[in-house]
Amino acid sequence: MSVYSVREELKPSGLNGISDEQINDHWNLYVGYVNNANALHKELADMRANGQGGTAAYTDRRRRFGFEYDGMVLHEYYFGNLKAGVSRNDSGAFSKAVAEQFGSVEAWIEDFKTCGKSRGIGWAVAYFDPATGQINNHFIQHHEDGHIAGFAPLAIMDCFEHAWMVDHGAGGRGAYIDAVVENLNWDVLDERTQAAQEGKIWKRF
Amino acid sequence: MSVYSVREELKPSGLNGISDEQINDHWNLYVGYVNNANALHKELADMRANGQGGTAAYTDRRRRFGFEYDGMVLHEYYFGNLKAGVSRNDSGAFSKAVAEQFGSVEAWIEDFKTCGKSRGIGWAVAYFDPATGQINNHFIQHHEDGHIAGFAPLAIMDCFEHAWMVDHGAGGRGAYIDAVVENLNWDVLDERTQAAQEGKIWKRF
Amino acid sequence: MSVYSVREELKPSGLNGISDEQINDHWNLYVGYVNNANALHKELADMRANGQGGTAAYTDRRRRFGFEYDGMVLHEYYFGNLKAGVSRNDSGAFSKAVAEQFGSVEAWIEDFKTCGKSRGIGWAVAYFDPATGQINNHFIQHHEDGHIAGFAPLAIMDCFEHAWMVDHGAGGRGAYIDAVVENLNWDVLDERTQAAQEGKIWKRF
Amino acid sequence: MSVYSVREELKPSGLNGISDEQINDHWNLYVGYVNNANALHKELADMRANGQGGTAAYTDRRRRFGFEYDGMVLHEYYFGNLKAGVSRNDSGAFSKAVAEQFGSVEAWIEDFKTCGKSRGIGWAVAYFDPATGQINNHFIQHHEDGHIAGFAPLAIMDCFEHAWMVDHGAGGRGAYIDAVVENLNWDVLDERTQAAQEGKIWKRF
Repeated sequence: MSVYSVREELKPSGLNGISDEQINDHWNLYVGYVNNANALHKELADMRANGQGGTAAYTDRRRRFGFEYDGMVLHEYYFGNLKAGVSRNDSGAFSKAVAEQFGSVEAWIEDFKTCGKSRGIGWAVAYFDPATGQINNHFIQHHEDGHIAGFAPLAIMDCFEHAWMVDHGAGGRGAYIDAVVENLNWDVLDERTQAAQEGKIWKRF
Repeated sequence: MSVYSVREELKPSGLNGISDEQINDHWNLYVGYVNNANALHKELADMRANGQGGTAAYTDRRRRFGFEYDGMVLHEYYFGNLKAGVSRNDSGAFSKAVAEQFGSVEAWIEDFKTCGKSRGIGWAVAYFDPATGQINNHFIQHHEDGHIAGFAPLAIMDCFEHAWMVDHGAGGRGAYIDAVVENLNWDVLDERTQAAQEGKIWKRF
Repeated sequence: MSVYSVREELKPSGLNGISDEQINDHWNLYVGYVNNANALHKELADMRANGQGGTAAYTDRRRRFGFEYDGMVLHEYYFGNLKAGVSRNDSGAFSKAVAEQFGSVEAWIEDFKTCGKSRGIGWAVAYFDPATGQINNHFIQHHEDGHIAGFAPLAIMDCFEHAWMVDHGAGGRGAYIDAVVENLNWDVLDERTQAAQEGKIWKRF
Repeated sequence: MSVYSVREELKPSGLNGISDEQINDHWNLYVGYVNNANALHKELADMRANGQGGTAAYTDRRRRFGFEYDGMVLHEYYFGNLKAGVSRNDSGAFSKAVAEQFGSVEAWIEDFKTCGKSRGIGWAVAYFDPATGQINNHFIQHHEDGHIAGFAPLAIMDCFEHAWMVDHGAGGRGAYIDAVVENLNWDVLDERTQAAQEGKIWKRF
């Protein structure tokens, strides 16, 4: 009676500069988050059913939503926006929006890269503000520290060490980030942006 | 050329058990977040324009999106879901959803209250998962630690000390939380939930 | 069989610009941390004794050491370095050290004040590095985020809202920080610094 | 005019179950923290000298002490307590203390291992409380979240992915933790503990 399932359709392969071995190692971590999200969800429901909903243990297990849920969700967004060989469409919704705000798509890319190089581990996320239509790059520390309530995530890049260590060892962050940008699925970014701009909440894809 | 404005229409008054003096003191903090969100947005744009987008100072100022933006956004959600005298509608979208998941609306309220009493300061947020329709109470530490990417915030309660200290002093968290639940605007919760269930992204209200 | 006791001898009174009512309200929070530190310590020992030391609940309760222990410890350091009317001694160990590093004691004070005004709630801590003798002001977010392992805390200022709201309301941070500096017990700072410089670990006082 | 230097004498080699290649990759990260700690220290001093000590940029760069300094310091503690082939001495200060508190050294080891397996990345640290003599295992998230002010770190284990990925890939945390315990330098743990018990602050070693 699980709530969440592994989203096999999102698994990338044949990327440029990110090996399938790296993706496979990484994918196993994602599967772990799905399992842990389901386990946490069930444990909390069981504790409530057993009258333990007011205990400190329940409260502190509940704090783990951030880590386990974001650990699952962000990986889905991330794998879902990676694909080799998708050309950028300058008239796509994402490209148009960031070009207007940052001056050019290249300037947004530069900012996204430096965001991904922020000291510490975490994620770079281009977030859409539904109230203003603005898109900014946010660095999320760990999985859960720095998200904005109600903003829509558009472009997502994993910046945990596991994302590059198989291919590059500990020092490979820069080369990895270049490769991620090389493999961004611009069609997906446009699709996500268009949905957000039309006021549609979208399931994770 | 500010991006964000103070949302005067959201300011509550005449609540039961939360004084207007308390709300006024609290509102001033919210105004401060709007100003700081605008200032941060402008400062980052200026730094990029001045070729400082790759500096450590820029990177570390960018980390403050979480605090300043959530500080603004969460207060808008919070003030926006407080109103005296709104009766709960058991067939409303929010009530139906949480009753199904928690067993009863009362059980959800109990869980929301204990969530708000989590040790430390922050927020209790009932979050909607667009992929499953599930609603869970999450404790957010500070303003930015614990949000789930892409989830929709439905019911929001401020649990910083400034929210109750004017009325109660440092020890008044429990009394304050009771008062918040007393003043929840169930119509707004239903409206937010219905929008989320229909796949509509909604501006903050 | 408690491990920790309330340190009554540390309670300040008659401070300049910080009312006894404010201190009393604040002291009650400190007492709560002592109780919670004892409760957490006992709960973990009991869980280990009951074979629950490997559970997720144990692991997540253990994460709370940071909040509860620092909540206790930092308040002891803070109350312990507040006293009305203690004159600064320019040849004291603390003053000499920070004057050398910052240019003057006044420059250190200025830096300590701006540290205390860092956006967000937490603590300003002047930390001594035992390996170099350097003293720097660190902003600690919440109670537990930002400490340096093995460094010795010298001057400590609480920057949670409860520290000033009784006297000033939410907007009183600046006036409160001025008052704290006005009431720093320079003798205690010198004593702590001298102990650290002599390589003595000191109990909290 | 650097404040910190790389501590070459702490670099381990010939460990059991942790390859020199793994240590070398890891050591490079440590060197990066030393460089970044020096750079941050200098940048803050320069900003103060240039009258920028009151800016938001200065304040936010100062927040990075936690990450850069702990990133350096914890690696020194960690490398400094790893050595192949050091037998445990049951009458050593560390072993005696934890045996008394946990029931046996084996029980402490078990607790240290589960601490190291806490979900998320960070460190397991056995911390000594100078006020009570108690030793508990604390999980530190990232480098800086969870330390206790004024406590003395005794046994330290890195639980970032870079610590095991060269040897094991992403899934190797458990095998790595076993190997760390296998290579603990019990003489160093005893030495650190004895110093702490005698009230001596000790330089990092």
